[in-house]
Amino acid sequence: MTKTFDDLLAKVAACSTKKVAVAVAQDDAVLEAVAEAKKRGIAEAVLVGDEAKIKEVAASINMDLSDYEIINVEDTYEAALTAVKLVHDGKADMYMKGLIDTKSFLKSVLDKEVGLRTDKTLSHVCIFDIEGHDGLLFLSDVAFIPYPDLEAKANIIRNTVEIAHACGIECPKVAPLAAVEVVNPKMPVTVDAAELTKMNEEGKITGCIVDGPLSYDLAIDSEAAKHKGATDRKIVGDADILLFPDIHAGNITYKALVHNAKVTNGNILTGTKAPVILTSRSDDFETKVNSIAVGAVVAEAMNKQ
Amino acid sequence: MTKTFDDLLAKVAACSTKKVAVAVAQDDAVLEAVAEAKKRGIAEAVLVGDEAKIKEVAASINMDLSDYEIINVEDTYEAALTAVKLVHDGKADMYMKGLIDTKSFLKSVLDKEVGLRTDKTLSHVCIFDIEGHDGLLFLSDVAFIPYPDLEAKANIIRNTVEIAHACGIECPKVAPLAAVEVVNPKMPVTVDAAELTKMNEEGKITGCIVDGPLSYDLAIDSEAAKHKGATDRKIVGDADILLFPDIHAGNITYKALVHNAKVTNGNILTGTKAPVILTSRSDDFETKVNSIAVGAVVAEAMNKQ
Repeated sequence: MTKTFDDLLAKVAACSTKKVAVAVAQDDAVLEAVAEAKKRGIAEAVLVGDEAKIKEVAASINMDLSDYEIINVEDTYEAALTAVKLVHDGKADMYMKGLIDTKSFLKSVLDKEVGLRTDKTLSHVCIFDIEGHDGLLFLSDVAFIPYPDLEAKANIIRNTVEIAHACGIECPKVAPLAAVEVVNPKMPVTVDAAELTKMNEEGKITGCIVDGPLSYDLAIDSEAAKHKGATDRKIVGDADILLFPDIHAGNITYKALVHNAKVTNGNILTGTKAPVILTSRSDDFETKVNSIAVGAVVAEAMNKQ
Repeated sequence: MTKTFDDLLAKVAACSTKKVAVAVAQDDAVLEAVAEAKKRGIAEAVLVGDEAKIKEVAASINMDLSDYEIINVEDTYEAALTAVKLVHDGKADMYMKGLIDTKSFLKSVLDKEVGLRTDKTLSHVCIFDIEGHDGLLFLSDVAFIPYPDLEAKANIIRNTVEIAHACGIECPKVAPLAAVEVVNPKMPVTVDAAELTKMNEEGKITGCIVDGPLSYDLAIDSEAAKHKGATDRKIVGDADILLFPDIHAGNITYKALVHNAKVTNGNILTGTKAPVILTSRSDDFETKVNSIAVGAVVAEAMNKQ
């Protein structure tokens, strides 16, 4: 059972060596993360971008490039297409954003010929190991889908359940969060949460147990659930996946945890043919390295399908 | 300058002794908090409710009632009206919920004859001292107003600014939060945030500096603000007040901080003639005591007006 981020890293160590294709690799923070991932045996990398600039940036951070494959493509978007095609063609296992704006990067992800498009909804998943909390927590969507409707929420759950399975959580418990734990017709979020629970019961969302609406404390704290007498629920403080009502609730909570709690976390974009690592400039070094580790575990699970 | 919850408690010590009127006081958790508040010199209490039951509950927690004024009113709602009238008539300084459902308690707060109704919007404010964060944070609204529109958001800010002033923050910085820090017409939350900023500039929201939309990291972490190059904003990680887009975002964030970070916090309901303490069954002992302390500080400031 995967309970901590260290357990997840142990899973990476048991995988075959993965390779990350970096789009527009001349970015110091991304190169540092890639170098650390290689050093720790998490993943190898192929660096696509302006070779002269990549060498310049690598020199500035004392990074030895002799063990890296570099593909010289000076144009930014061409570099992205070249990098994503490596993943599309199975020559690399995951795709990572370098010095390219998010919009162009996503365009390359969705390219019909060489991209990683599927018929699934793209969504963002972050995996938290929070000090004092027993078990990993998978949060979605805190960064990508602004205002998911019911079907989008169902798809976010399906995507996140796949990631949880890949991480070794066999039947994750999914809590659609709200401010309250009872359905209130004046709060559409609670109606959606109940509907998602019903879809799970009817077999429309599988591989997991959904129980919502739930407040955050009832979802993650069994003592709080007992104190509130909410012990007849399917989730009693033991949720694995937290579904957020919208991007504001998700993003604010995500950042409150990152900035005010003691956490280890990694984030990926999913719903694609292969894991996509879309770290933000505000993510710290460890989060970037951890995100590559999550990508490796997910790539291993996808390869086995 | 009030920077920590201890600073706030020092302010209480400098106030004249306050009295809390407890509605339907036969509740063990509420009596324990009231006893502790008295022991620490935070506030005296007058206990309104079923005297026999109050004595029974007090005995069960080894609480000595000899120093307390008890007013025997057996009927629940009549007890609430009696307690709130004490505050209305200036015989007590704040009003606290005991063993009565929230709806009936609020009905007594809003009673036209003996209640604490004003022409202001009622809103909930919680005050956090978070380990590792410099300065108190005032969060609103995480518990009371489900989906505030622009005018309700302006009123929430006005109420919260008053509380911040009472706590010794002279010109609080107010961050209307969103997932992003730029206005996006597809995200109404960001449009409202910009409008609130404009209302502040035009003198429609006073006694504070409003700057939104802001993401949580830019609001509370100056390093993150510098890293993202957002140093030309009026708020650069130094927000005092965090305005949430809706109750879901507020409540989930509140509970994530309470359960996963190291915090000291107290909560009150405001927009009333006197502070109202509406603790939840999920609030722990210290939060209940701290909420009485916040009430005392706010009552002191209201008395001086």
